[in-house]
Amino acid sequence: MSAPDPAVTDLFGLVAYGELLAFDRLAADARLAPDLRRRAALSEMAAAEIAHYRWLADRLGALGATPEAAMAPYVDALRAYHDSTEPRDWPEAVTKAYVGDAITDDFLREIAGGLDGPDRALLLDVLHDSRYAEFAAAEIRAAIEADPRMAGRLSIWARRLLGEALSQARRVAAADDRGALAALIGRAGGDVSTLLRRLTEAHTARMVAAGLNN
Amino acid sequence: MSAPDPAVTDLFGLVAYGELLAFDRLAADARLAPDLRRRAALSEMAAAEIAHYRWLADRLGALGATPEAAMAPYVDALRAYHDSTEPRDWPEAVTKAYVGDAITDDFLREIAGGLDGPDRALLLDVLHDSRYAEFAAAEIRAAIEADPRMAGRLSIWARRLLGEALSQARRVAAADDRGALAALIGRAGGDVSTLLRRLTEAHTARMVAAGLNN
Repeated sequence: MSAPDPAVTDLFGLVAYGELLAFDRLAADARLAPDLRRRAALSEMAAAEIAHYRWLADRLGALGATPEAAMAPYVDALRAYHDSTEPRDWPEAVTKAYVGDAITDDFLREIAGGLDGPDRALLLDVLHDSRYAEFAAAEIRAAIEADPRMAGRLSIWARRLLGEALSQARRVAAADDRGALAALIGRAGGDVSTLLRRLTEAHTARMVAAGLNN
Repeated sequence: MSAPDPAVTDLFGLVAYGELLAFDRLAADARLAPDLRRRAALSEMAAAEIAHYRWLADRLGALGATPEAAMAPYVDALRAYHDSTEPRDWPEAVTKAYVGDAITDDFLREIAGGLDGPDRALLLDVLHDSRYAEFAAAEIRAAIEADPRMAGRLSIWARRLLGEALSQARRVAAADDRGALAALIGRAGGDVSTLLRRLTEAHTARMVAAGLNN
C-alpha cells in the first residue's frame, strides 16, 4: 500500500478530532438545558458528532493511517478553543453549538473541492443535519424573545466564539509544517487568509439572520 | 385516542430516562480514557444510549404520553444511582458501563414478555449491541492483566454498583403508586423480588466470567 496522501490524513485527523471534542463538549453542555426535552436535543447533536467521528476514523484506518496519530497535531488548538469558550448557560450553549456547527460546515464545503471521489463524498456526509441548526436557531430566538437584553449578550458571545475559532485556526495553519492543509486549500481554489475571510463573512451574515448583531 | 396503558408509559419513561442519564454519564466518563481510541469507544457507547432514548420518546409521544411526564417519577432514583457510583478511573468507568448495560438488558428481557407486539419489539431493540460489552470486558481483563490487584478493587466496585442499583430499584418499586410496573412484571410471569433475585444471580455469574469475584 502506498503512503496515504498527507493532505487527506491531515484534514481528516483535524475534522475527526473536532468531532470527538464537539461530542464531549456538547454532551457536557446539555446539562445546562432547562428541561429534559432540550437536554435530549443537545445530547442528540452530540451523538451525531461521534457517529461522524467513526466514519472519519474508519476512513483514516482504510487509508493506512492511524486515527490517533492523524489527530494528535490538532489536540492543543481544538482543546484551547473549547476551554476558552465554555458556555455559562443554555443560551450560550445553543449559540455555541449553532456557530460551531455552521463554521465547521462552511469550512468543510470550502475544502471539499480539493478532494477526490470518496473522500470528497465523505466530507460532505459529515456536514451537520439542518434540523440541529433549526433547533439551535429557534432556541436563540426564544431566549431573545424572553429577554431582549439577551441579543446584546449573545452577539458579544458569538463574536468571541468566532474570534477564538479564528485564532486557533491560525495556530493550526502555522503548525501545518508540511503544508498539506495549505495545499488542499489551494487545490480547492483558495488560500488560508481568503478562506478565513470567507468563513468570517458567512458567520457575520448568519448572525444577522439569527437576530444577532455582529 | 384512548388513554395510554400506564404500564407501558411508566416502563418506557423509566427506560427512556435511564438512557438519557446513561448518555450523560458515559459521555463524561469517556474523559477518563487513557487514549483517544478508548475515549471514542466509550463516547460511542454513550451515543447509542441517546439513539435509544429517541425511539422510546417517540413511542411515548405516539402513545399520547408526554416523554417528560413519563420520565419524571424516575429522575431522583436514577440520578441517585449515578451520583453514588461516579467512577474514579478508567477501569471503574468501563466496569460501570459493562455492569450497567448488562443489568439493564437483563431487566428489559425479563419484562419484555409482559408487553405486546410493537412495544415488546421496541424494548428488545434497545438492548445494547454486544460489541460494547465485548469492548468493556476486554478493557476489564486488560486492566487486571496490567495490575492483578485490580481484580479485588473492581470486584468490590462491581458489588457496590449492584448494591446501589438494587437499592434504587427498590425505591422505584416502592414509588410505583398505581402498581403499573408491578403489574407488568406480573404479566411477564414474575414479581418484583423474584425479578431482583434473578438480576442479581445473572450479575454474579457474569462477574465471575469476567474474572471478578462476586
